Amino acid sequence: MSKIDRLDEYISVINCELSSCLPECFYNEPIVTQAMQYSLMNGGKRIRPVLTLEFCRMCGGDINNALAFACAIEMIHTYSLIHDDLPCMDNDEMRRGKPACHVEFGESYALLAGDALLTYAFEYALKSDFMQKDPSCAAEALRILSTCSGISGMIGGQVVDLKSEDKHVTIDTLRIMDSLKTGALIKAAALMGTVIGGGNNEQKQAAVQYAENLGQAFQIVDDILDVTADEATLGKPVGSDKESGKSTYVSLLGLGQSQKIADELTNKAIEALDVFEDNGFLIELTKSLASRKN
Amino acid sequence: MSKIDRLDEYISVINCELSSCLPECFYNEPIVTQAMQYSLMNGGKRIRPVLTLEFCRMCGGDINNALAFACAIEMIHTYSLIHDDLPCMDNDEMRRGKPACHVEFGESYALLAGDALLTYAFEYALKSDFMQKDPSCAAEALRILSTCSGISGMIGGQVVDLKSEDKHVTIDTLRIMDSLKTGALIKAAALMGTVIGGGNNEQKQAAVQYAENLGQAFQIVDDILDVTADEATLGKPVGSDKESGKSTYVSLLGLGQSQKIADELTNKAIEALDVFEDNGFLIELTKSLASRKN
Repeated sequence: MSKIDRLDEYISVINCELSSCLPECFYNEPIVTQAMQYSLMNGGKRIRPVLTLEFCRMCGGDINNALAFACAIEMIHTYSLIHDDLPCMDNDEMRRGKPACHVEFGESYALLAGDALLTYAFEYALKSDFMQKDPSCAAEALRILSTCSGISGMIGGQVVDLKSEDKHVTIDTLRIMDSLKTGALIKAAALMGTVIGGGNNEQKQAAVQYAENLGQAFQIVDDILDVTADEATLGKPVGSDKESGKSTYVSLLGLGQSQKIADELTNKAIEALDVFEDNGFLIELTKSLASRKN
Repeated sequence: MSKIDRLDEYISVINCELSSCLPECFYNEPIVTQAMQYSLMNGGKRIRPVLTLEFCRMCGGDINNALAFACAIEMIHTYSLIHDDLPCMDNDEMRRGKPACHVEFGESYALLAGDALLTYAFEYALKSDFMQKDPSCAAEALRILSTCSGISGMIGGQVVDLKSEDKHVTIDTLRIMDSLKTGALIKAAALMGTVIGGGNNEQKQAAVQYAENLGQAFQIVDDILDVTADEATLGKPVGSDKESGKSTYVSLLGLGQSQKIADELTNKAIEALDVFEDNGFLIELTKSLASRKN
């Protein structure tokens, strides 16, 4: 299979599973499942579930064992976006070019849709065949997922982010924030795949190292794209995101230095993949994430 | 051990575990863990975790195996109250005589504290000794917990509740709503305890039947107490909760008939306990819940 085919294949499998995994309707009140579905199928890049499947495969595992866990991580990513967009958080009305969940369905249903997606992530993985087949290994994967999603991971990052609003933060704080808010879930994705694929300790450590570097690089590229997209479409000068009150790598170090750091982190991520034999696809994917345009 | 001593003992064990289970601080940003702790230790009656421990014991199991799962269900109950109180939901400023979580800590931190408690419920149970000891049985317990908390359980009930606001609902809708919003988590509590205690199928069915009846009775007594408390403290006439736009058993059937139904359901719950040998404590507790004054 060519490398591009493999990405398409993964995304197609993930989208097929995600689009059919939710209950269709509920006591004649379909609104929350509609809201869950709306956000879940709103054109995400599926990076996290792709990583779960690919790390599983690189360790010699059957990706079918990892699929429910890959979907679970995408559900958690999606719930975090729904809650992040709420008026009491970032108050974003648009998400990926479409009205945010709370704009489309109202604030209370968006809140519940987020809660429901977070809960369903665990329910879905717990009900998977792999959970029956190898409950000990599956439980290890879910321990990783819950730790990385919660107060010691993604939610912790959101707290640091909220606390940092409207004040100057240092590069160190930014690094901690990014490593939690974005990095933790990427780490969970890679590590869950490795665990379910039967990876050894060296491979688990490599997955963590890969994900920590990729997570940082990914967030920096996001910050760069925010600025260059504004420049391209709105003619705003570089660095004007300072006005939004949020410090980013770009506002602290400038575009050139930020891109340099992102490239270095990407290289470190790729180096970490050395311990996996058949790593060609993931190296290519990692490079394409570093040079992505959206 | 006398029956009252056993309740005190359970509550003391649960409170001790809950008060020490959260991480103390997080990257020098303790606010969300403080908010989690504030709501978790805000004087709840601990009915759900007590049920988990007692069903485990009645089935001959070691309650230490069930303790993390009992705490997990209390965390989920607590998160649901935090999110329920938010301005976009019920907009309640007080909870158990103290400022609601979002009043005390602000809306965004309350939202995150709720998300974090829901996630931590799974993390805590997944990291328990029992999960290592008997992952298959522990996974069955968590499947019950996730199903009953999510879109097919508690959250589903909140959706029916939101949809029913400001309109007349039938007793049938009320029954569905109560059985989901309140009953589902009580069912999870009883059934998880039975599963962890090694209960057989007959005992599992009995636990479900007990919980379904108790859940309904519990909600009706809540509705009765809402009215009688208003009457006692504010001199409001019975039935004035109709004005709040929410239909309840009391507003639809009156106090007398509601109390009669609550008593019948309580009796059915107690009958379901026949299959358990040492059921004296739970029968007494169930009676006390039906005749509680707050």
